[in-house]
Order: sequence, then C-alpha cells, then structure tokens
Amino acid sequence: MQTNHHKTPVLKELNITNIRVQLLELQANILAALQIHEPKPFQRDSWIRPSDSPLQGDGFSCLVEDGEMFERGGCNFSHVKGLKLPAAASNRHPELAGTPFEAMGVSLVLHPRNPYIPTVHLNIRLMLVQAENSDKPIFWFGGGMDLTPYYPYLDDVKHFHQTCKEALDPFGTDKYLRFKKACDEYFYLKHRQEARGVGGIFFDDFLELGTEQSWAMTLATGQAFLPAYLPILMARKNTTFGEQERDFQAYRRGRYVEFNLVFDRGTLFGLQSGGRTESILMSMPPVVKWRYNWSPELGTPEATLYTDFLPVRDWLSSL
Amino acid sequence: MQTNHHKTPVLKELNITNIRVQLLELQANILAALQIHEPKPFQRDSWIRPSDSPLQGDGFSCLVEDGEMFERGGCNFSHVKGLKLPAAASNRHPELAGTPFEAMGVSLVLHPRNPYIPTVHLNIRLMLVQAENSDKPIFWFGGGMDLTPYYPYLDDVKHFHQTCKEALDPFGTDKYLRFKKACDEYFYLKHRQEARGVGGIFFDDFLELGTEQSWAMTLATGQAFLPAYLPILMARKNTTFGEQERDFQAYRRGRYVEFNLVFDRGTLFGLQSGGRTESILMSMPPVVKWRYNWSPELGTPEATLYTDFLPVRDWLSSL
Repeated sequence: MQTNHHKTPVLKELNITNIRVQLLELQANILAALQIHEPKPFQRDSWIRPSDSPLQGDGFSCLVEDGEMFERGGCNFSHVKGLKLPAAASNRHPELAGTPFEAMGVSLVLHPRNPYIPTVHLNIRLMLVQAENSDKPIFWFGGGMDLTPYYPYLDDVKHFHQTCKEALDPFGTDKYLRFKKACDEYFYLKHRQEARGVGGIFFDDFLELGTEQSWAMTLATGQAFLPAYLPILMARKNTTFGEQERDFQAYRRGRYVEFNLVFDRGTLFGLQSGGRTESILMSMPPVVKWRYNWSPELGTPEATLYTDFLPVRDWLSSL
Repeated sequence: MQTNHHKTPVLKELNITNIRVQLLELQANILAALQIHEPKPFQRDSWIRPSDSPLQGDGFSCLVEDGEMFERGGCNFSHVKGLKLPAAASNRHPELAGTPFEAMGVSLVLHPRNPYIPTVHLNIRLMLVQAENSDKPIFWFGGGMDLTPYYPYLDDVKHFHQTCKEALDPFGTDKYLRFKKACDEYFYLKHRQEARGVGGIFFDDFLELGTEQSWAMTLATGQAFLPAYLPILMARKNTTFGEQERDFQAYRRGRYVEFNLVFDRGTLFGLQSGGRTESILMSMPPVVKWRYNWSPELGTPEATLYTDFLPVRDWLSSL
C-alpha cells in the first residue's frame, strides 16, 4: 500500500509487511473454516480509501448476511494511515491524540441465527504512532476475543476461556487472568450495570514481552479463535428453537448495539478517524429489538443468563 | 423535589417551580392528544432516582409499545440534579464540565408503525449550572423538534417547517432560519455523510432574549409540536403498506440508533450523568435492521428519500 501523506516507517525491530501477511493468512484461515459451516458464500470486498478521505489505506471485508448458520457476520482485514490519531485509540498514551498513525488488524463478529449459539467477537491489531519529538514511531499490539451468549451453557463458557488460557500460557501464566479481568472491565455497559456477555480476554497498549514475543502472543490470540468457538457452534447448531428464543436474542442484541456504539473504542476509533463505515458496522446485528423496562421472570431460561452468567465469575476455578 | 446534595437555587429572574408546572402541563397535553390516535393506553411511570445514584431527581415517563398507531414511543418529563456536569451538556460552556447542575425538560420520540408516517422528536429543556466562582448559577434553555420520514411527502415537510417558523416568528424573524440551520448541522451522521431526516429546528445555550422571553420561546416550541405533527399523522395513517415498506423502515431506523448512540448530546448526557437508562433509551426504535452496503435502486420510492429529502434544502422557499 502506498499513500500520499506518509509512508510505512522502516523499523528494524518490526516487520510490518510480515505482520500484514500473517493477518491476511489468519483471516483466510478463519473464513475457510467458517465457510464449512455456512452454505452461503461470504461476500468479499477489497477496498481502497478514496484519496479525499481523512484516512488512507486498504482493506478486505468479508461478510455473510441472511446465511443458514450466520444471520450476519464478517471477518475484516484493514490497514489504514491517518494524520490525526483519534482520542479513542489509546488509554496509555493520551498525549498522542492528534498525531499521525498507522493501524492494521483483523476483526470478526458473528451473529448466528440459532439463539443457542453465542455471538462472538475477535480482534487483533497493531498500532503505530509517529510522536512529534521522535524520528521513530512508537507502536503496540492489542487484541482479544469475547463471547456473548443468549442461552448459555457452562461447558461452552469454560471451553472458551480454557482455550484462551492455553493460547496465552506459553507467553506467561499471568496473562490469562490479567486479560480476563481486563475483558470483564472493558465489555461492561455502565448505564445498564451489566456485562456484555461472559467475557474472554482483552489486552491493549501491549509491548511488554518485546516486539517479537508480543506479536507472537497477539497472533496466538487470533489463532485460538477457531478452536475456542467452533466446538461451541457445532455443539449447539442442532438445538431447536422457536419464536420466544428468537425474540430474546433480538432483545439482547440491543445491548450489543448499545455497547458498540456508546463504548467500544474500536468502533469509535473507526468512525472518528473516517474509516469505512460499512466495514466498521459489520458488528451490528441483523435484527434488533428494544423493549421498555423489560426483565425476564425468575426461574426462566432467560433469567439464567442474568443471574448465573453475566455477573463476573472465575470460569476456570471449577474445571 | 428535595435532594440531599444541593437545593434548587432561588433566582429572582427564574421561577423554576413555574417552569416545572408548565413542562408537566405540556407533557399532559401532548399525551392526551396522542392518546386520541392510539387505542392502547400509554404506560405511566413516576420515578425517583435512588439515593446512591450519581444523579438525584424525579421524572414521569409515559410510553406506549406495540400500539396500533405507535410501535414504540414516549413523552417523558425529568428533573434531575447532579454534582458533575457531563462534557456533553454544553458547547458554549466547556469550562463548566464537572460542576454541579440541574436539568429539567420534556422529551418525546414517536416511532409509528406505518412507514408513511415519519418518526418525530421533540425536546425542550432548562439547564442550570453552579459555576465555582459565583454564588448564582448560570442557566440557559434548549429545544427543538425534527422529522425523520421513510417515505416523505413534500407537503408534510413544508407543513412541519412552516409550523416551526410560525411558532418562532413572534420571537424574532431571524430565529427560524438560524435554528433550522442549527438543526441541519446537529442531526447529521458524519460517518454516513447523511442527514438524519428532513430537519426542523434546534437551539441550545439560549438566553439572548432575556429569561422570560427565552423561556416563552422554548415553551412555544414545545406547544408547536402537536400542530406540526398531528396533521401529518392524520394525512398518512390510512396509507396502506406492505413488507417492503416495513423492511425499509426497519433499515432506516438503524440510522436513528446510530445517531442517538454515537452523536446525540441528550442521550450521551443522560447516560454519562447516570440517568434512568430505560427512559433515555425510549428513543430506540422497537425493531431495527442492519444490512451491509445497501442502497436503494435509483427511481424507487426508497431512493427518493436519499435524493430529494435528505440533502439540506430550504423547504419554505417555494411555499
């Protein structure tokens, strides 16, 4: 990719071209595996930002809508450069807002049709920022995945978290618990005092293992997605459901919309920086319902989500 | 209303109790008129914020869901006091963020079932802020109404704007055009480069006519809602529609959600200040759909919205 306003920096310690290739490879692997479970072909869109866009760059958006397995879902690659880092980009470096940046990553959100299969989210990314008083950019990695069930099974949640833990353990046995906690804190709807789902792992501003190992850990997170999610999908895909389950799913998807549009840094970063709206908003569910002041009756399967799964738990303690 | 952490200031020039009575009266009048067109009774909830809430105060939320005319809609009164003014509250006074405040207002959003009847929004409000170096609070008024059609009629849009103009003209003939422009600027989805609808009027940080006349103008805006909207509702309520129109309505409602959760200062003010979530989010439509990279075919009625109505226009020039 070549852009007008600045070029990819050459950094001995960071091979950006190589990371780009590995991200595209991860995206391709995930899509190939998802396509096995989805008869409808994913729609594939290569895009390049128009030259008058505040954001330069390219991407590869792959989505499916109205599929048999996935009612809406996608796995997108993007690689963009901008002149002004949005405030949403970094907690650790608020002083860098407004400086030139480069961002590259893979993002995935899947909204299955069957309410017994959870919605899932994965993202891994590299961020580079050109600080004013330096000839070399600073950079960091971020990533994570989290699960948002409607009718949860404890075994599914344990399996998801256990797979995350096994992916992170080679990079230090402290990582899973730290990133699990960060995930619980991040995917939280303050105005509802409610978690978005059952969590997973989340990290940002990460470079503490050095460039090579930090990227290896980030990529390992991406590679853990298929083993973390596919077994859940396969276990629940034949569970029968009716209008009541679909209705609850549509209602709970409202929380997903609220989180992503009000709080999610990735979404706000994309929209604030002038990114490609239709790719960013692939995270929006296909059909969503809002209902006033509703809560499930105690003792119903719908209530179980609120009482047993949304409160923060140490999912692996009883494994 | 009495709260623990601070009391209503006594200001000779501003009779807060009187404004409260007039706001509740406006709400009652609007609800009575809407109920004539809606067989299902509006649900009425009086609420008082719990004492551990960051926001103290009370309110009266009146909503209808799954009605014959209104698929979801409400007209809410609220009167709250907080210790820290959210950043979203004022453009003109950024230095006041973080100071104690009091806010009172009436908000309305109606999502009719029939896609030929536009969604509509009204809000009028009083904001008081206790600046640090002053014994007297400063205060201002805000308000406006705007129309969001799916299958628009030029006559409806003209009528809506004309009614707004007639309500404002007694307070200065500059007001309508200024507030119409402010409305076009405010209800704009930057990430879509698209207006939310056909606009209306919008003003904030307003006190330029003095306390009494500024409030009179604000109240006149609220009182103009019924004559601005009801004739449109009555003209279109018998227009027949099918699945295609309902589908387009659900798709366009996605833009309403995007605007309110990403940009709307009233919504963000409410959520940031610890307001009552279910009352604030009465603006959310009942059923919403997202679809990837969709746009209507040229020449269809759906395309007319984009080509003839969403671009900014001077609706009254050809009246």
